[in-house]
Amino acid sequence: MKINILKQELVEALNAIGRVMGSNVAIPLLKGFVISAKGDQITMFATNTDISTKAIIKAEIFEEGEIVIADGKLFNDIIRKLPKDEVKLEVKEGNIEIKSGRSKSKLQIIGTEDFPKAPTFKEDKSFKIKGSTLKELISKSVFAIATDEVRPVLTGVYFEVKSGLLNLIALDGIRLSHTYTTVSDEAEGLSAIVPGKGAIEISKAIEEDEEITLAFSSNHCLFKTDSKEIVVRLLDGEYIKYSSIMPTEFSKTITTGKKEIVDAIERAAIVAKEGSNPIILLIENGKLNITAKSQLGCTSEDITVEESGADSLEIAFNNKILLEGLKAASSEKVKLQFNSSTSPCLIVPSDDSDEAFEYLALPVRIRS
Amino acid sequence: MKINILKQELVEALNAIGRVMGSNVAIPLLKGFVISAKGDQITMFATNTDISTKAIIKAEIFEEGEIVIADGKLFNDIIRKLPKDEVKLEVKEGNIEIKSGRSKSKLQIIGTEDFPKAPTFKEDKSFKIKGSTLKELISKSVFAIATDEVRPVLTGVYFEVKSGLLNLIALDGIRLSHTYTTVSDEAEGLSAIVPGKGAIEISKAIEEDEEITLAFSSNHCLFKTDSKEIVVRLLDGEYIKYSSIMPTEFSKTITTGKKEIVDAIERAAIVAKEGSNPIILLIENGKLNITAKSQLGCTSEDITVEESGADSLEIAFNNKILLEGLKAASSEKVKLQFNSSTSPCLIVPSDDSDEAFEYLALPVRIRS
Repeated sequence: MKINILKQELVEALNAIGRVMGSNVAIPLLKGFVISAKGDQITMFATNTDISTKAIIKAEIFEEGEIVIADGKLFNDIIRKLPKDEVKLEVKEGNIEIKSGRSKSKLQIIGTEDFPKAPTFKEDKSFKIKGSTLKELISKSVFAIATDEVRPVLTGVYFEVKSGLLNLIALDGIRLSHTYTTVSDEAEGLSAIVPGKGAIEISKAIEEDEEITLAFSSNHCLFKTDSKEIVVRLLDGEYIKYSSIMPTEFSKTITTGKKEIVDAIERAAIVAKEGSNPIILLIENGKLNITAKSQLGCTSEDITVEESGADSLEIAFNNKILLEGLKAASSEKVKLQFNSSTSPCLIVPSDDSDEAFEYLALPVRIRS
Repeated sequence: MKINILKQELVEALNAIGRVMGSNVAIPLLKGFVISAKGDQITMFATNTDISTKAIIKAEIFEEGEIVIADGKLFNDIIRKLPKDEVKLEVKEGNIEIKSGRSKSKLQIIGTEDFPKAPTFKEDKSFKIKGSTLKELISKSVFAIATDEVRPVLTGVYFEVKSGLLNLIALDGIRLSHTYTTVSDEAEGLSAIVPGKGAIEISKAIEEDEEITLAFSSNHCLFKTDSKEIVVRLLDGEYIKYSSIMPTEFSKTITTGKKEIVDAIERAAIVAKEGSNPIILLIENGKLNITAKSQLGCTSEDITVEESGADSLEIAFNNKILLEGLKAASSEKVKLQFNSSTSPCLIVPSDDSDEAFEYLALPVRIRS
């Protein structure tokens, strides 16, 4: 293998495969990555067995070949520090030689036989989606996945195509986040659980203005552009029937500025976090009063809201659950819908927003 | 106590005392800080017993008083998040009430009796110095202090005034950093060991364009401006006679661009750090060749240097020791002076710089 390539191109390709490389500490071999040179392009492949990433770049190839660079991070560090834009890579006596200007390094390589292959992928359903849209869908759902492994399916984001809509759902037992967009008919009927880490990896690899092909087989999901591919192993199991959890009627509704309520809850959260005390919302006479208490002190603040529905309501939440849901909304105003102090609250963008997002938060019991 | 004050003023005062507050975890009381209101100003005082900090700000005072706010960090977090610029502080029923806009918080306070007092300070020697100068002196020395406690005096920076020069020295047994400036006669004869942490704290509190009074007693050092004071407890003991360590004659000298040599050593360091291998300098025929090896690979690079002195020289260093010294120099060119592969190298700015800095680095033995 003998290649001339631009440093910047190599750096971008290493960025694309770098987060996966070496993240499976149980298999030291996976600290490395495959680099193969063929025709006029280089393909770089790294995997942690759950997520596989591939980057494809143009290069001047004098001699084709395929090797594994044993320590991907070391290679990455060296490439970034090279003195010149031109980089020469050449396999010599069981090493790869990296030359740039008057700097010369040799790194250990190994054969490709033992390195895991890219998963074989038999496409089942696929659709195209704009990078910015997919990024937004993932960011508005993935934060709500479960972080413990009690129910493994809940550590993933549920992708579902139903009636022409791609729904993304995440829930962890005390909240549920749901966001959606329209997609093409071919994907109708799709349902898949993408692990949270895989969803985040895809989201990080996306450029806002790219058009992306997202394809699903029974075991894997493939994210693809001209210059990169990510294959994520799906989670096995059946996802929770989320639509049956969603309340459809409410006895009390308030509408308020998103920034206003987020800021006030964040202030209350400073005191509440000592001992993870709840924050308490009291809705009364067109006013939302937000309070929190801990052994170190207490805090209280009123904000003005539009209120509908009879009677006053007092309801308590873990501040993190409420804040993350409110922050995920991108509308200027948000609507909070309640039934009682023990039933979940549904947060949606206010009526004059066309944002496709809803968030359900379970309250906590108020200690008296 | 009843005060009106601007949020920004409070934030700045909390910045000044915040790094010390709560850093002595052995004494929970020191999570708090003293706030006293008298005349038209507020004084805030925090201490970790080694370092004491005081901030003085103007405020509208309706009722004088002095209390300890039990949890300084909580107070700090709340102040930063207040919705309005105007802040009202008032002691009410054993709490301090913080009001701003429609937000109201109450935090626990305690009496001042048990809180440590500011150290009494009987000035011995003092001088004035420009903030930017003191900042530079500290940054060019403090990185070279010892980080272990084998010889406690070496964890401090040595301040010494001799023949009208303020010298700052730090050394850890394998390198020595020395930097200096002129100061007024009154400080002649001063010698004091300022703990590394204290020196860093002073450096952080300094504004570039402030004129600072630095005063020393037998046990403490005081750093003072109109709005803040830091008192640092000095280290006990006798400092090493550094001037006797400094070689004065050299058999070989090279001069080279600082960026050029730093970049090349950093590239070698990427490979060398695996297993903390040394980097090897070979000086020969007007060329400096820099190499490093580890089990994962090797790297080599030539740079052109001005060379004087006979014969070639091969010498090895821990890359960190060499890099930190070279980086501390601010001149464009640096001079490296040697005697043999086993004697220390003296790094100084090149002749056409008026930078007051010298750095001594011990080599390591070359493994054959």
